[in-house]
Formats: sequence, structure tokens, C-alpha cells
Amino acid sequence: MGIAELWFTEKQTPDLAISTKIKRIYVQEKTEIQELAMVETEAFGNMLILDGIIMTTERDEFVYHEMMAHPALVTHPNPEQVLVVGGGDGGVIREILKHPKVKKATLVDIDGKVIEYSKKYLPTIACKLDDPRVEVLVKDGFLHIHESKNLYDVILADTTDPIGQAARLFTRGFYHGIYEALREDGLFVAQTEDPWFNAELIARIHRDVKDAFPIVRHFWANVPTYPTGMWTFTMGSKKYDPLEVDISKIPDLDTKYYTPQIHQAAFVLPKFVADIVKD
Amino acid sequence: MGIAELWFTEKQTPDLAISTKIKRIYVQEKTEIQELAMVETEAFGNMLILDGIIMTTERDEFVYHEMMAHPALVTHPNPEQVLVVGGGDGGVIREILKHPKVKKATLVDIDGKVIEYSKKYLPTIACKLDDPRVEVLVKDGFLHIHESKNLYDVILADTTDPIGQAARLFTRGFYHGIYEALREDGLFVAQTEDPWFNAELIARIHRDVKDAFPIVRHFWANVPTYPTGMWTFTMGSKKYDPLEVDISKIPDLDTKYYTPQIHQAAFVLPKFVADIVKD
Repeated sequence: MGIAELWFTEKQTPDLAISTKIKRIYVQEKTEIQELAMVETEAFGNMLILDGIIMTTERDEFVYHEMMAHPALVTHPNPEQVLVVGGGDGGVIREILKHPKVKKATLVDIDGKVIEYSKKYLPTIACKLDDPRVEVLVKDGFLHIHESKNLYDVILADTTDPIGQAARLFTRGFYHGIYEALREDGLFVAQTEDPWFNAELIARIHRDVKDAFPIVRHFWANVPTYPTGMWTFTMGSKKYDPLEVDISKIPDLDTKYYTPQIHQAAFVLPKFVADIVKD
Repeated sequence: MGIAELWFTEKQTPDLAISTKIKRIYVQEKTEIQELAMVETEAFGNMLILDGIIMTTERDEFVYHEMMAHPALVTHPNPEQVLVVGGGDGGVIREILKHPKVKKATLVDIDGKVIEYSKKYLPTIACKLDDPRVEVLVKDGFLHIHESKNLYDVILADTTDPIGQAARLFTRGFYHGIYEALREDGLFVAQTEDPWFNAELIARIHRDVKDAFPIVRHFWANVPTYPTGMWTFTMGSKKYDPLEVDISKIPDLDTKYYTPQIHQAAFVLPKFVADIVKD
């Protein structure tokens, strides 16, 4: 950048910000859906930013993508048909395909530009989007969920934050739609924000998912580039309980965060988080 | 602050920063030891900053202080004499005193100003510094460790980052000094930074502690105001293994993060962290 030192700053809340030094801006573009930036950072490698919010980085993406995929795919004994809502960067798809039982993984992202630029600038993340088992649809995920009945074994809601049109993907209507889109023993996982600044949201999600699914579980992982570094995930399941998985039977998935022991530990919530989702 | 919006920014690495909006500056002072600031933030309440680095905040302090104290004090069956090196804010002392077997808790902080201003501006953290079981020494912790022989059941190294003179508190010599200062079945815990940007440091600490102690364990917790939100702790123990604690016997400690289940889960390291401390 020559003599100018360039930083990207995300206001994670009105009172809290994260800033990373930028080496290069690859893309800054208003797509039909959102503002998209792809930049190179010193601390985290290439970084995808949507509407000013860090979506994923080359350095820490493995945590989020592994934890979106593996707890769900290990809990379901036969995950043949898997749907990803959002996730146009392809990271969740890459992890899904580590499970040999998966016959088809469908990605539904509303913004084709996210897919296009991820292939170009996040090749280690988007690397499996052209796999023959993968179907990519550029389409509204909310709509796709409501058009799908009894189709999927596992649905993974890799959404942006509940702001603007993505707010629909954090509603009771969405979770009921997911219930209908799943087969009779299906399950889903959604990313559900941080518990430090979004306790009310998580409590509401807990109630709404519980309204639709007999089994509701929450787990968490450390993602440095997400607010507070503590990220939660919510699983709704019709039949299988992630806490009853025999972890001695989990295969080696070639991961950097997830392990069989992490499968258990991630569901252990610090007390203040457990209190948020207490029935 | 009137019309000016004031932010405090900590450069957590040369390429990564956290910023919090400031409502009020209580103290900005060069003590004999370091630069000390006490400020009120929107996001985290009152905040202690030393040499430009966030030490603790009212909002998230419980995580760090509980995790410094309870895994150690639950692992030792009879922790009567406990030493805190650093920790002038008093948070670790407050947690220590939740254990009825503790007869005496000694705090050795090199900077009396940290203690003074914590009592004034962090009253919920420093609340137990005047307890009759507590001895407060304004003194170099490195020196105190090397003057102490066979004295303590548990030592908790609640230090600043390994920069400047605090670097001595992350050395082989310090860990050997701790070994000598502990009784024959003693154990210690030290805060040991984040694994994303300090992998080499943690690997070295692992080797150095292993050089002195037969049992070395690492655990972690989420602290939002520390870099990456993932904070590690290292335990060195002469006799007792934290992994062998019967968690059904852990009493209710009136905590907000630590629970008996967290006692186990915190020692489960994500794969990339386990790889750092692999023997």
C-alpha cells in the first residue's frame, strides 16, 4: 500500500470494533444483494466481507466450517442428502464432502457473486464447489426451504447475521420450514451468533427451534474474527441426539479444530450461556 | 463525552486491533512500573488497561478469574496456602476465597497503584482484598517466588503479557522457582496467552513446565477482550492430575463460567491447539 497504512474496521456492536491491517483490496462491489469486499489481510490472509461484516478468512475459517458440518453429520447415521443455506464461500460444502455417505450436497446462496469471488480469492475454501456431488443454486434460501418437503437428511444454515433480509433466516417460520424440508429423521444446524451480545436472540431461537423439534442442542467454538470470539450453533433434530453419539466411532475427518473429544466438549456450555437456553 | 466520540484501541498484534467506545476516563497515570488507565466503556463496563493492553473489564472478568482459580483449587484436595503472582485487581483472590479450605491467600503484585485503583473503580472485582484471610504484598513476584521454599499448595500466575519485565514470568527459571516455592504436592496455573498468535510461546512454556513438573495440562476459555477470544492456561502439578478430578464432588462455587462439566471440557483442546503442546 505504499506509505499509507490501510485498516479495515468492523463495528461488531455500536461500541466495539475489530480492525485488521489490509495489504490489498481485490474486490469492492455492490452486488444485487449486498456490498461485497474481498481483501488480503496481514493477520488472517484473504478475507470476505459482506455489508461491512467479516464472513470468513483463510486463517480461521476452518473452525466455523468444521463446526457447522461435523457435529451434524456425525450425529445423523446416514446423511445422504445435505443442504447448505447460504455459505457461498464453499467452506461448509468442503467439510460435508469429507463424509463418504453424502451422495449429494446442495448449496443455495442468494448471491452468485459470493460464489464467484470465493472461487477466485478463497480457493482453499471454495475448492469443492465443482465436485460432482455438489449442486449449486443461486436462489433465495428462505424460498428454497419452503419449496422443499421431506427432502434432506441434514440442513446447515450458514447464514449472515440476522440483519436485513437475512433476519427471515432466524424466525420461527424458517425453523418450521426446515422441519418440513427434512426427512422424518432429519436434523439441522444453524449458526446462532455470540452469547455475550445476543443473549435475547439465542433465547428466542432456542424457544422457536424447540417449538418445532423434539431435540434442541447448543454448542460453541472459538472464531477469532467473529465478535467476542465465542460463536454458538443450534441443532434441531427430529430423532438423533448429538449427545448420544458414540465418539469412539467417529472417523478421522482430517480437521484442524473438530475432534471426537471436541464433539462432546463443544456442547458443554459455560454457565452464563447455559442459563440463556435453560427451559 | 459531549460531541466527541472517544474510542480506546489496543493493537493486539501489529496487524489486529480491538476498539471499545469510552464513556469516561477515570485515571491515566504513569506509575513506577507501567502506564495505567482506568476507563468506563459502553460494551464492557469499567476497564483496566496497563501499557495499552486490556487487563480486565467488569463485564467479562469472571471468565478469566474463575478459570485461573477453580481448576487448580478443585484439583488440589487441600489448598490451604495459595499465592497469586500479579492479579492486583483482586479477581483471582475473590474466586480463591470461595474455597473454604483456603486459610491464607497471598497476593504479590509489583504495582500498588493497580491495587489502589482496582479497589476504587473495580469494586466487584477487588471486593475481597481486605478479607482477613488475604495478605497483600506490593513486591516483585519473581523475587517473591525465588525467596519462597516449600510454602504454597497452589500458586496462580496472573501475569501481564510476556513483554518487558513480565517476560521473566514466562521463563524456565520462573517455573523452577515455582516448583521450589510449592509444597511437595503443590500445583500451579499460569495464564499463557492465545494459541492463534502465540503458538511458539505456548510450545516453549509446555516444554519448560514439563522440565520441572511431572504433570502438565493445558486448558482454555473464551475471554472476549483478550486477543482472538481464546485464552489458554497451563497447569504444572507435582502430584494431582486435573483430569482425574471426580467432578461429581465439585461443590457449587457460585460461578458464571466454570461448572463441573466445564472443568472437563476446558481441558479438551481443539486439534490445532493440541498439536502445539504435543510431546
